[in-house]
Amino acid sequence: MNDLSVLYRLAQTIAERKSADPSHSYVAKLLHQGQDKILKKIAEESAETIMASKDGHTEQIVYETADLWFHSLVLLAHHDISLDQLLQELERREGTSGITEKASRTKG
Amino acid sequence: MNDLSVLYRLAQTIAERKSADPSHSYVAKLLHQGQDKILKKIAEESAETIMASKDGHTEQIVYETADLWFHSLVLLAHHDISLDQLLQELERREGTSGITEKASRTKG
Amino acid sequence: MNDLSVLYRLAQTIAERKSADPSHSYVAKLLHQGQDKILKKIAEESAETIMASKDGHTEQIVYETADLWFHSLVLLAHHDISLDQLLQELERREGTSGITEKASRTKG
Amino acid sequence: MNDLSVLYRLAQTIAERKSADPSHSYVAKLLHQGQDKILKKIAEESAETIMASKDGHTEQIVYETADLWFHSLVLLAHHDISLDQLLQELERREGTSGITEKASRTKG
Repeated sequence: MNDLSVLYRLAQTIAERKSADPSHSYVAKLLHQGQDKILKKIAEESAETIMASKDGHTEQIVYETADLWFHSLVLLAHHDISLDQLLQELERREGTSGITEKASRTKG
Repeated sequence: MNDLSVLYRLAQTIAERKSADPSHSYVAKLLHQGQDKILKKIAEESAETIMASKDGHTEQIVYETADLWFHSLVLLAHHDISLDQLLQELERREGTSGITEKASRTKG
Repeated sequence: MNDLSVLYRLAQTIAERKSADPSHSYVAKLLHQGQDKILKKIAEESAETIMASKDGHTEQIVYETADLWFHSLVLLAHHDISLDQLLQELERREGTSGITEKASRTKG
Repeated sequence: MNDLSVLYRLAQTIAERKSADPSHSYVAKLLHQGQDKILKKIAEESAETIMASKDGHTEQIVYETADLWFHSLVLLAHHDISLDQLLQELERREGTSGITEKASRTKG
Protein backbone atom coordinates (compact mmCIF):
# COMPACT_ATOMS: atom_id res chain seq x y z
CA MET A 1 0.00 0.00 0.00
CA ASN A 2 1.35 3.37 -1.08
CA ASP A 3 1.42 6.31 1.24
CA LEU A 4 -1.90 8.07 0.78
CA SER A 5 -0.54 11.04 2.68
CA VAL A 6 0.94 12.33 -0.57
CA LEU A 7 -2.51 13.81 -1.19
CA TYR A 8 -2.35 15.78 2.06
CA ARG A 9 1.14 17.00 1.35
CA LEU A 10 0.13 18.05 -2.17
CA ALA A 11 -3.00 19.82 -0.90
CA GLN A 12 -0.93 21.64 1.71
CA THR A 13 1.78 22.67 -0.75
CA ILE A 14 -0.88 23.96 -3.15
CA ALA A 15 -2.62 25.91 -0.36
CA GLU A 16 0.70 27.52 0.56
CA ARG A 17 1.14 28.65 -3.05
CA LYS A 18 -1.88 30.95 -2.67
CA SER A 19 0.34 33.54 -1.00
CA ALA A 20 3.47 32.80 -3.04
CA ASP A 21 5.03 34.89 -5.77
CA PRO A 22 3.28 33.93 -9.07
CA SER A 23 6.59 33.94 -10.87
CA HIS A 24 8.05 31.25 -8.63
CA SER A 25 5.90 28.21 -9.34
CA TYR A 26 3.34 26.81 -11.77
CA VAL A 27 0.67 26.50 -9.06
CA ALA A 28 1.25 30.00 -7.65
CA LYS A 29 0.88 31.38 -11.16
CA LEU A 30 -2.28 29.34 -11.85
CA LEU A 31 -3.90 30.40 -8.56
CA HIS A 32 -2.95 34.00 -9.30
CA GLN A 33 -4.53 33.83 -12.77
CA GLY A 34 -7.77 32.83 -11.11
CA GLN A 35 -10.78 30.60 -11.44
CA ASP A 36 -11.34 30.57 -15.21
CA LYS A 37 -7.76 29.54 -15.87
CA ILE A 38 -8.05 26.69 -13.35
CA LEU A 39 -11.38 25.57 -14.84
CA LYS A 40 -9.84 25.50 -18.32
CA LYS A 41 -7.18 23.15 -16.95
CA ILE A 42 -9.90 20.89 -15.46
CA ALA A 43 -11.58 20.75 -18.88
CA GLU A 44 -8.28 20.13 -20.64
CA GLU A 45 -7.10 17.37 -18.32
CA SER A 46 -10.48 15.68 -18.43
CA ALA A 47 -10.35 15.66 -22.24
CA GLU A 48 -6.79 14.33 -22.16
CA THR A 49 -7.85 11.57 -19.77
CA ILE A 50 -10.61 10.61 -22.22
CA MET A 51 -8.18 10.62 -25.15
CA ALA A 52 -5.56 8.61 -23.23
CA SER A 53 -8.21 6.06 -22.33
CA LYS A 54 -9.27 5.72 -25.98
CA ASP A 55 -5.61 5.25 -26.90
CA GLY A 56 -5.36 2.54 -24.24
CA HIS A 57 -1.91 3.54 -23.01
CA THR A 58 -1.77 2.74 -19.28
CA GLU A 59 1.06 5.12 -18.52
CA GLN A 60 -0.73 8.01 -20.23
CA ILE A 61 -4.03 7.25 -18.47
CA VAL A 62 -2.24 7.36 -15.11
CA TYR A 63 -0.48 10.58 -16.08
CA GLU A 64 -3.60 12.41 -17.24
CA THR A 65 -5.75 11.20 -14.33
CA ALA A 66 -3.06 12.46 -11.95
CA ASP A 67 -3.16 15.79 -13.78
CA LEU A 68 -6.94 15.87 -13.36
CA TRP A 69 -6.73 15.16 -9.61
CA PHE A 70 -3.88 17.62 -9.22
CA HIS A 71 -5.84 20.44 -10.83
CA SER A 72 -8.93 19.45 -8.81
CA LEU A 73 -6.83 20.11 -5.71
CA VAL A 74 -5.86 23.51 -7.13
CA LEU A 75 -9.56 24.30 -7.66
CA LEU A 76 -10.38 23.27 -4.08
CA ALA A 77 -7.55 25.52 -2.84
CA HIS A 78 -8.91 28.40 -4.92
CA HIS A 79 -12.23 28.01 -3.09
CA ASP A 80 -10.56 27.40 0.30
CA ILE A 81 -12.10 23.93 0.40
CA SER A 82 -10.06 21.36 2.29
CA LEU A 83 -9.15 17.86 1.15
CA ASP A 84 -11.03 16.64 4.22
CA GLN A 85 -14.28 18.02 2.85
CA LEU A 86 -13.75 16.07 -0.37
CA LEU A 87 -12.90 12.87 1.51
CA GLN A 88 -15.99 13.23 3.67
CA GLU A 89 -18.13 13.43 0.56
CA LEU A 90 -16.40 10.34 -0.85
CA GLU A 91 -16.98 8.56 2.45
CA ARG A 92 -20.68 9.16 2.03
CA ARG A 93 -20.48 7.07 -1.15
CA GLU A 94 -18.50 4.28 0.42
CA GLY A 95 -19.67 0.73 0.72
CA THR A 96 -22.43 -1.07 -1.06
CA SER A 97 -25.15 1.16 0.29
CA GLY A 98 -23.46 4.38 -0.76
CA ILE A 99 -22.77 3.17 -4.26
CA THR A 100 -26.23 1.71 -4.59
CA GLU A 101 -27.78 4.93 -3.42
CA LYS A 102 -25.95 6.70 -6.21
CA ALA A 103 -27.69 4.47 -8.71
CA SER A 104 -31.07 5.76 -7.67
CA ARG A 105 -30.18 9.40 -8.05
CA THR A 106 -31.85 10.99 -11.00
CA LYS A 107 -29.17 12.79 -12.90
CA GLY A 108 -30.45 14.21 -16.14
CA MET B 1 -7.12 14.79 9.56
CA ASN B 2 -9.70 12.62 7.86
CA ASP B 3 -9.08 8.98 7.10
CA LEU B 4 -7.52 8.90 3.65
CA SER B 5 -8.10 5.16 3.54
CA VAL B 6 -11.60 5.84 2.23
CA LEU B 7 -9.95 6.10 -1.19
CA TYR B 8 -8.53 2.59 -0.87
CA ARG B 9 -11.81 1.16 0.32
CA LEU B 10 -13.65 2.87 -2.55
CA ALA B 11 -11.10 1.65 -5.10
CA GLN B 12 -11.40 -1.88 -3.73
CA THR B 13 -15.20 -1.85 -3.72
CA ILE B 14 -15.22 -0.56 -7.29
CA ALA B 15 -12.71 -3.24 -8.40
CA GLU B 16 -14.93 -5.92 -6.86
CA ARG B 17 -17.87 -4.62 -8.87
CA LYS B 18 -16.13 -5.71 -12.09
CA SER B 19 -17.35 -9.26 -11.52
CA ALA B 20 -20.69 -8.31 -9.94
CA ASP B 21 -24.15 -8.58 -11.45
CA PRO B 22 -24.74 -5.34 -13.44
CA SER B 23 -28.28 -5.13 -12.12
CA HIS B 24 -27.13 -4.98 -8.52
CA SER B 25 -25.24 -1.70 -8.34
CA TYR B 26 -24.58 1.52 -10.19
CA VAL B 27 -20.85 0.81 -10.51
CA ALA B 28 -21.31 -2.78 -11.69
CA LYS B 29 -23.69 -1.51 -14.37
CA LEU B 30 -21.31 1.28 -15.42
CA LEU B 31 -18.33 -1.11 -15.66
CA HIS B 32 -20.47 -3.54 -17.62
CA GLN B 33 -21.55 -0.82 -20.08
CA GLY B 34 -17.88 -0.22 -20.82
CA GLN B 35 -15.33 2.44 -21.50
CA ASP B 36 -17.35 4.96 -23.53
CA LYS B 37 -20.04 5.14 -20.88
CA ILE B 38 -17.42 5.74 -18.18
CA LEU B 39 -15.70 8.41 -20.28
CA LYS B 40 -19.00 10.19 -20.81
CA LYS B 41 -19.38 10.34 -17.03
CA ILE B 42 -15.86 11.81 -16.69
CA ALA B 43 -16.81 14.52 -19.22
CA GLU B 44 -20.13 15.15 -17.49
CA GLU B 45 -18.72 15.40 -13.98
CA SER B 46 -15.90 17.64 -15.16
CA ALA B 47 -18.46 19.99 -16.76
CA GLU B 48 -20.57 19.93 -13.61
CA THR B 49 -17.51 20.76 -11.51
CA ILE B 50 -16.86 23.75 -13.78
CA MET B 51 -20.48 24.89 -13.53
CA ALA B 52 -20.55 24.45 -9.74
CA SER B 53 -17.38 26.50 -9.47
CA LYS B 54 -18.86 29.30 -11.57
CA ASP B 55 -21.96 29.21 -9.34
CA GLY B 56 -19.67 29.48 -6.31
CA HIS B 57 -21.60 27.02 -4.15
CA THR B 58 -19.08 25.25 -1.91
CA GLU B 59 -21.28 22.24 -1.21
CA GLN B 60 -21.90 21.69 -4.92
CA ILE B 61 -18.21 22.07 -5.79
CA VAL B 62 -17.33 19.40 -3.21
CA TYR B 63 -20.12 17.15 -4.50
CA GLU B 64 -19.14 17.40 -8.18
CA THR B 65 -15.40 17.08 -7.52
CA ALA B 66 -16.13 13.93 -5.49
CA ASP B 67 -18.18 12.65 -8.44
CA LEU B 68 -15.22 13.37 -10.74
CA TRP B 69 -12.75 11.51 -8.50
CA PHE B 70 -15.22 8.67 -8.01
CA HIS B 71 -15.65 8.15 -11.75
CA SER B 72 -11.87 8.47 -12.22
CA LEU B 73 -11.55 5.48 -9.89
CA VAL B 74 -14.09 3.61 -12.01
CA LEU B 75 -12.01 4.38 -15.12
CA LEU B 76 -8.85 3.13 -13.42
CA ALA B 77 -10.69 -0.07 -12.43
CA HIS B 78 -11.84 -0.50 -16.03
CA HIS B 79 -8.20 -0.43 -17.12
CA ASP B 80 -7.03 -2.56 -14.15
CA ILE B 81 -4.91 0.34 -12.95
CA SER B 82 -4.43 0.50 -9.19
CA LEU B 83 -4.85 3.52 -6.94
CA ASP B 84 -1.19 3.03 -6.03
CA GLN B 85 -0.14 3.77 -9.60
CA LEU B 86 -2.05 7.04 -9.47
CA LEU B 87 -0.56 7.98 -6.09
CA GLN B 88 2.95 7.24 -7.34
CA GLU B 89 2.40 9.61 -10.23
CA LEU B 90 1.11 12.28 -7.83
CA GLU B 91 4.14 11.70 -5.61
CA ARG B 92 6.35 12.57 -8.56
CA ARG B 93 4.75 16.02 -8.56
CA GLU B 94 5.12 16.53 -4.86
CA GLY B 95 7.16 19.27 -3.28
CA THR B 96 8.47 22.45 -4.75
CA SER B 97 10.64 20.71 -7.28
CA GLY B 98 7.87 18.54 -8.66
CA ILE B 99 5.47 21.41 -9.03
CA THR B 100 8.11 23.65 -10.48
CA GLU B 101 9.09 21.00 -12.98
CA LYS B 102 5.48 20.93 -14.15
CA ALA B 103 5.74 24.63 -14.91
CA SER B 104 8.42 24.04 -17.46
CA ARG B 105 6.50 21.42 -19.38
CA THR B 106 5.29 22.70 -22.70
CA LYS B 107 1.64 21.85 -22.96
CA GLY B 108 0.11 23.27 -26.06
CA MET C 1 -23.67 22.52 -52.65
CA ASN C 2 -26.17 21.68 -49.96
CA ASP C 3 -28.78 24.14 -48.82
CA LEU C 4 -27.20 26.09 -45.97
CA SER C 5 -30.61 27.47 -45.10
CA VAL C 6 -31.23 24.37 -43.00
CA LEU C 7 -29.32 26.20 -40.27
CA TYR C 8 -31.76 29.10 -40.39
CA ARG C 9 -34.77 26.84 -40.37
CA LEU C 10 -33.34 24.89 -37.42
CA ALA C 11 -32.54 28.09 -35.51
CA GLN C 12 -36.05 29.37 -36.15
CA THR C 13 -37.72 26.12 -35.10
CA ILE C 14 -35.64 26.06 -31.92
CA ALA C 15 -36.50 29.70 -31.13
CA GLU C 16 -40.19 28.89 -31.53
CA ARG C 17 -39.82 26.07 -29.01
CA LYS C 18 -39.09 28.63 -26.29
CA SER C 19 -42.80 29.26 -25.92
CA ALA C 20 -43.94 25.69 -26.63
CA ASP C 21 -45.28 23.12 -24.18
CA PRO C 22 -42.24 21.32 -22.68
CA SER C 23 -44.00 17.99 -22.97
CA HIS C 24 -44.36 18.32 -26.73
CA SER C 25 -40.78 18.27 -27.96
CA TYR C 26 -37.21 17.52 -26.93
CA VAL C 27 -36.07 21.10 -27.53
CA ALA C 28 -39.01 22.69 -25.70
CA LYS C 29 -38.25 20.47 -22.71
CA LEU C 30 -34.53 21.28 -22.84
CA LEU C 31 -35.16 25.04 -23.04
CA HIS C 32 -37.64 24.75 -20.19
CA GLN C 33 -35.10 22.88 -18.03
CA GLY C 34 -32.78 25.82 -18.45
CA GLN C 35 -29.19 26.80 -18.94
CA ASP C 36 -27.37 24.15 -16.87
CA LYS C 37 -29.14 21.33 -18.66
CA ILE C 38 -28.22 22.81 -22.06
CA LEU C 39 -24.60 23.30 -20.97
CA LYS C 40 -24.40 19.68 -19.85
CA LYS C 41 -25.50 18.68 -23.34
CA ILE C 42 -22.77 20.88 -24.88
CA ALA C 43 -20.19 19.14 -22.67
CA GLU C 44 -21.62 15.71 -23.48
CA GLU C 45 -21.75 16.21 -27.24
CA SER C 46 -18.26 17.68 -27.27
CA ALA C 47 -16.95 14.60 -25.44
CA GLU C 48 -18.83 12.32 -27.82
CA THR C 49 -17.34 14.17 -30.79
CA ILE C 50 -13.86 13.60 -29.32
CA MET C 51 -14.58 9.91 -28.73
CA ALA C 52 -16.04 9.44 -32.23
CA SER C 53 -12.96 11.08 -33.71
CA LYS C 54 -10.66 8.75 -31.76
CA ASP C 55 -12.74 5.80 -33.00
CA GLY C 56 -12.31 7.12 -36.55
CA HIS C 57 -15.88 6.36 -37.65
CA THR C 58 -16.88 9.01 -40.19
CA GLU C 59 -20.61 8.53 -39.75
CA GLN C 60 -20.33 8.87 -35.96
CA ILE C 61 -18.12 11.97 -36.23
CA VAL C 62 -20.73 13.62 -38.47
CA TYR C 63 -23.52 12.58 -36.11
CA GLU C 64 -21.86 13.90 -32.95
CA THR C 65 -20.64 17.13 -34.56
CA ALA C 66 -24.21 17.75 -35.76
CA ASP C 67 -25.39 17.14 -32.18
CA LEU C 68 -22.83 19.66 -30.96
CA TRP C 69 -23.93 22.31 -33.45
CA PHE C 70 -27.58 21.56 -32.76
CA HIS C 71 -27.17 22.08 -29.02
CA SER C 72 -25.08 25.20 -29.68
CA LEU C 73 -28.13 26.59 -31.48
CA VAL C 74 -30.27 25.70 -28.46
CA LEU C 75 -27.83 27.59 -26.23
CA LEU C 76 -27.95 30.64 -28.51
CA ALA C 77 -31.77 30.51 -28.40
CA HIS C 78 -31.66 30.33 -24.60
CA HIS C 79 -29.67 33.57 -24.59
CA ASP C 80 -31.78 35.14 -27.38
CA ILE C 81 -28.69 35.29 -29.59
CA SER C 82 -29.40 35.00 -33.30
CA LEU C 83 -27.64 32.78 -35.81
CA ASP C 84 -26.70 36.00 -37.61
CA GLN C 85 -24.60 37.11 -34.65
CA LEU C 86 -22.70 33.82 -34.77
CA LEU C 87 -22.18 34.07 -38.54
CA GLN C 88 -20.89 37.63 -38.21
CA GLU C 89 -18.30 36.45 -35.71
CA LEU C 90 -17.28 33.63 -38.07
CA GLU C 91 -17.05 36.14 -40.91
CA ARG C 92 -14.51 38.08 -38.88
CA ARG C 93 -12.28 35.00 -38.99
CA GLU C 94 -12.70 34.43 -42.69
CA GLY C 95 -9.90 34.58 -45.16
CA THR C 96 -6.18 34.32 -44.64
CA SER C 97 -5.99 37.46 -42.56
CA GLY C 98 -8.69 36.41 -40.13
CA ILE C 99 -7.24 32.96 -39.61
CA THR C 100 -3.74 34.33 -39.34
CA GLU C 101 -4.86 36.90 -36.80
CA LYS C 102 -6.21 34.05 -34.67
CA ALA C 103 -2.77 32.51 -34.62
CA SER C 104 -1.34 35.49 -32.87
CA ARG C 105 -3.87 35.53 -30.08
CA THR C 106 -2.44 34.40 -26.80
CA LYS C 107 -4.75 31.79 -25.43
CA GLY C 108 -3.49 30.27 -22.25
CA MET D 1 -30.38 37.56 -43.15
CA ASN D 2 -26.63 37.18 -43.04
CA ASP D 3 -24.73 35.40 -45.75
CA LEU D 4 -24.60 31.75 -44.68
CA SER D 5 -22.01 31.13 -47.36
CA VAL D 6 -19.34 32.28 -44.89
CA LEU D 7 -19.46 28.71 -43.60
CA TYR D 8 -18.60 27.32 -47.04
CA ARG D 9 -15.82 29.80 -47.54
CA LEU D 10 -14.39 29.00 -44.10
CA ALA D 11 -14.63 25.24 -44.72
CA GLN D 12 -12.88 25.67 -48.06
CA THR D 13 -10.11 27.86 -46.65
CA ILE D 14 -9.53 25.37 -43.86
CA ALA D 15 -9.42 22.45 -46.32
CA GLU D 16 -6.83 24.32 -48.40
CA ARG D 17 -4.67 24.72 -45.26
CA LYS D 18 -4.16 20.94 -45.18
CA SER D 19 -1.44 21.28 -47.80
CA ALA D 20 -0.11 24.64 -46.61
CA ASP D 21 3.13 25.37 -44.79
CA PRO D 22 2.43 24.90 -41.05
CA SER D 23 4.43 28.02 -40.23
CA HIS D 24 2.18 30.23 -42.33
CA SER D 25 -1.16 30.03 -40.55
CA TYR D 26 -2.83 28.94 -37.32
CA VAL D 27 -5.02 26.38 -39.10
CA ALA D 28 -2.19 24.90 -41.17
CA LYS D 29 -0.20 24.46 -37.97
CA LEU D 30 -3.15 22.91 -36.12
CA LEU D 31 -3.87 20.47 -38.96
CA HIS D 32 -0.20 19.59 -39.10
CA GLN D 33 -0.08 18.89 -35.35
CA GLY D 34 -2.83 16.37 -35.86
CA GLN D 35 -5.99 14.97 -34.35
CA ASP D 36 -5.21 15.13 -30.61
CA LYS D 37 -4.31 18.80 -30.82
CA ILE D 38 -7.57 19.56 -32.65
CA LEU D 39 -9.59 17.53 -30.14
CA LYS D 40 -8.00 19.43 -27.26
CA LYS D 41 -9.20 22.65 -28.90
CA ILE D 42 -12.74 21.23 -29.19
CA ALA D 43 -12.67 20.42 -25.47
CA GLU D 44 -11.22 23.81 -24.61
CA GLU D 45 -13.70 25.83 -26.70
CA SER D 46 -16.61 23.81 -25.37
CA ALA D 47 -15.52 24.55 -21.78
CA GLU D 48 -15.07 28.23 -22.65
CA THR D 49 -18.57 28.31 -24.16
CA ILE D 50 -19.93 26.85 -20.92
CA MET D 51 -18.02 29.39 -18.82
CA ALA D 52 -19.10 32.31 -21.02
CA SER D 53 -22.70 31.18 -20.72
CA LYS D 54 -22.45 31.04 -16.92
CA ASP D 55 -20.95 34.55 -16.99
CA GLY D 56 -23.88 35.67 -19.12
CA HIS D 57 -21.85 37.91 -21.43
CA THR D 58 -23.49 37.82 -24.86
CA GLU D 59 -20.42 38.91 -26.76
CA GLN D 60 -18.28 36.23 -25.12
CA ILE D 61 -20.89 33.52 -25.74
CA VAL D 62 -20.93 34.42 -29.44
CA TYR D 63 -17.14 34.48 -29.54
CA GLU D 64 -16.65 31.09 -27.88
CA THR D 65 -19.46 29.40 -29.83
CA ALA D 66 -17.85 30.68 -33.03
CA ASP D 67 -14.53 29.23 -31.83
CA LEU D 68 -16.28 25.91 -31.19
CA TRP D 69 -17.82 25.82 -34.67
CA PHE D 70 -14.57 26.96 -36.26
CA HIS D 71 -12.60 24.13 -34.64
CA SER D 72 -15.37 21.67 -35.53
CA LEU D 73 -14.75 22.63 -39.16
CA VAL D 74 -11.03 21.99 -38.64
CA LEU D 75 -11.86 18.54 -37.24
CA LEU D 76 -14.08 17.76 -40.23
CA ALA D 77 -11.26 18.85 -42.55
CA HIS D 78 -8.84 16.59 -40.68
CA HIS D 79 -11.15 13.65 -41.42
CA ASP D 80 -11.88 14.82 -44.99
CA ILE D 81 -15.53 15.22 -44.09
CA SER D 82 -17.35 17.95 -46.02
CA LEU D 83 -19.60 20.66 -44.62
CA ASP D 84 -22.32 19.14 -46.80
CA GLN D 85 -22.21 15.92 -44.82
CA LEU D 86 -22.75 17.87 -41.62
CA LEU D 87 -25.61 19.87 -43.10
CA GLN D 88 -27.30 16.71 -44.35
CA GLU D 89 -27.20 15.31 -40.84
CA LEU D 90 -28.67 18.55 -39.48
CA GLU D 91 -31.35 18.42 -42.14
CA ARG D 92 -32.41 15.03 -40.81
CA ARG D 93 -33.21 16.76 -37.51
CA GLU D 94 -35.13 19.57 -39.10
CA GLY D 95 -38.77 20.28 -38.49
CA THR D 96 -41.06 19.08 -35.77
CA SER D 97 -40.67 15.46 -36.67
CA GLY D 98 -36.90 15.50 -36.64
CA ILE D 99 -36.67 17.26 -33.31
CA THR D 100 -39.38 15.10 -31.81
CA GLU D 101 -37.64 11.99 -33.02
CA LYS D 102 -34.55 13.11 -31.15
CA ALA D 103 -36.53 13.18 -27.94
CA SER D 104 -37.25 9.49 -28.21
CA ARG D 105 -33.65 8.48 -28.70
CA THR D 106 -32.25 6.75 -25.69
CA LYS D 107 -28.98 8.38 -24.93
CA GLY D 108 -27.43 7.00 -21.78
